[in-house]
Amino acid sequence: MKPVLPVQPPLRLADCPPGFHDGLAKAAARKRTEAWCARIGELQPLLYANARHALLLVFQGMDTSGKDGAARGVLSAVNPAGVETADFKQPSAEELAHDFLWRIHRAVPVRGMIGVFNRSHYESVLVERVMGLQPKSVWRARYRQINEFERYLAENRVIVLKFFLHLSRDEQRRRLESRLADPAKNWKFSPDDLKSRAHWDEYQAAYEDALNRCSTRCAPWYLIPADHKWYRDYLIAQVVVHALEALRMEWPPLAVDCAKVRID
Amino acid sequence: MKPVLPVQPPLRLADCPPGFHDGLAKAAARKRTEAWCARIGELQPLLYANARHALLLVFQGMDTSGKDGAARGVLSAVNPAGVETADFKQPSAEELAHDFLWRIHRAVPVRGMIGVFNRSHYESVLVERVMGLQPKSVWRARYRQINEFERYLAENRVIVLKFFLHLSRDEQRRRLESRLADPAKNWKFSPDDLKSRAHWDEYQAAYEDALNRCSTRCAPWYLIPADHKWYRDYLIAQVVVHALEALRMEWPPLAVDCAKVRID
Repeated sequence: MKPVLPVQPPLRLADCPPGFHDGLAKAAARKRTEAWCARIGELQPLLYANARHALLLVFQGMDTSGKDGAARGVLSAVNPAGVETADFKQPSAEELAHDFLWRIHRAVPVRGMIGVFNRSHYESVLVERVMGLQPKSVWRARYRQINEFERYLAENRVIVLKFFLHLSRDEQRRRLESRLADPAKNWKFSPDDLKSRAHWDEYQAAYEDALNRCSTRCAPWYLIPADHKWYRDYLIAQVVVHALEALRMEWPPLAVDCAKVRID
Repeated sequence: MKPVLPVQPPLRLADCPPGFHDGLAKAAARKRTEAWCARIGELQPLLYANARHALLLVFQGMDTSGKDGAARGVLSAVNPAGVETADFKQPSAEELAHDFLWRIHRAVPVRGMIGVFNRSHYESVLVERVMGLQPKSVWRARYRQINEFERYLAENRVIVLKFFLHLSRDEQRRRLESRLADPAKNWKFSPDDLKSRAHWDEYQAAYEDALNRCSTRCAPWYLIPADHKWYRDYLIAQVVVHALEALRMEWPPLAVDCAKVRID
């Protein structure tokens, strides 16, 4: 089995088919994924008990690319009490009045926890760039600011893993159609999704720049072909398991002398 | 009048007398300070109305060096609604479980506001270094992390001014004695003050390093001789006025067409 490698610049999104699944069969992949998810469920209590590191999973991608679904899938065996999820929707007035990393840093998980970012600080070089909400001089400086912020987090024992869910325009159309057709999915549909879709190519260019400029040793980006949900989860679960295994965690020993403890 | 210059490394604290007052007479200095404070009171509404920049004043110094008094003195003519003060005492359990800049970044003021930090992220290279709360490998990396954080703030329109209130050991003794003698000041006395005093030289060395390593163009340190409260306020007020004047703020124009507004 090949390990999942982080993005190595220069990467061209046009060269990466969103429907790629490496010839794997769905059933076999699901089976492996399940085993990895179970392993994540075993490792999380160790992360919590040691409280030495935090794990931060960042999910980015176009609408319907499966940011929420991927997080749910990969953390299916984890005690929800050990997970903090932050959803970075349109910033509030208070958030806009602050520097752009203010709301992000607040949401960085405490050590021992798994943090999930559904969207993230990358929106500041995606939607804000594509929709012209900031002049180029402002968003250009952010790549370095983001790299320095993420390096700081890594140096302070926050493990940052970033997943770009790479969806095709066709698959997005199918998923949007199903949101329109299924009453149980209607609530997920927003006319704003069509606005972003209308700027598809500019978003792809903005993602490509973010991936190339901000995939670092401290905080790697992973390109996740996302047309097949099962392959998406297969890749992400594997990356998470490897990151947690690399910590070589053990159960922390008793902080007291066993012989001296009296329990009456 | 000489402008107050930021710290230029290499600076040796032992060469800087805390009782220095540049030959100024107290009454004359107080008069100038009052005028500057009034000017700050005029400039703050412009800062607020434009909401383009935030101003962050960081106060550090040994116990009794006058961190609180200096902030109060310099902002005496400012509407308190335009000021956010953050007091960085011993971190809470939640704060300790996060990266060290987490509680700091949360407290960074919104644009339009004046933020006051009574102690700050520098505690992480002062008390944590002197009292051995962190290994050297951890606190050494923090100087760069702090510089990058402060540069990020400056680039995001937070003006960072840092004041080290340089007190002599003798003057601290007098001030601590007066806290013990005066019932109205008793509440300010803590036995911890004596603990820090016992490590005087190590603290001076730690301050010296912080000043030399973290006085940057983006976020300068100012060395403020602090044995004379009137001279301390005289210097700080001047720095704050100059920083605000440098913004060349004007009243923002009406966002609507005057001729079209009907007030009945």
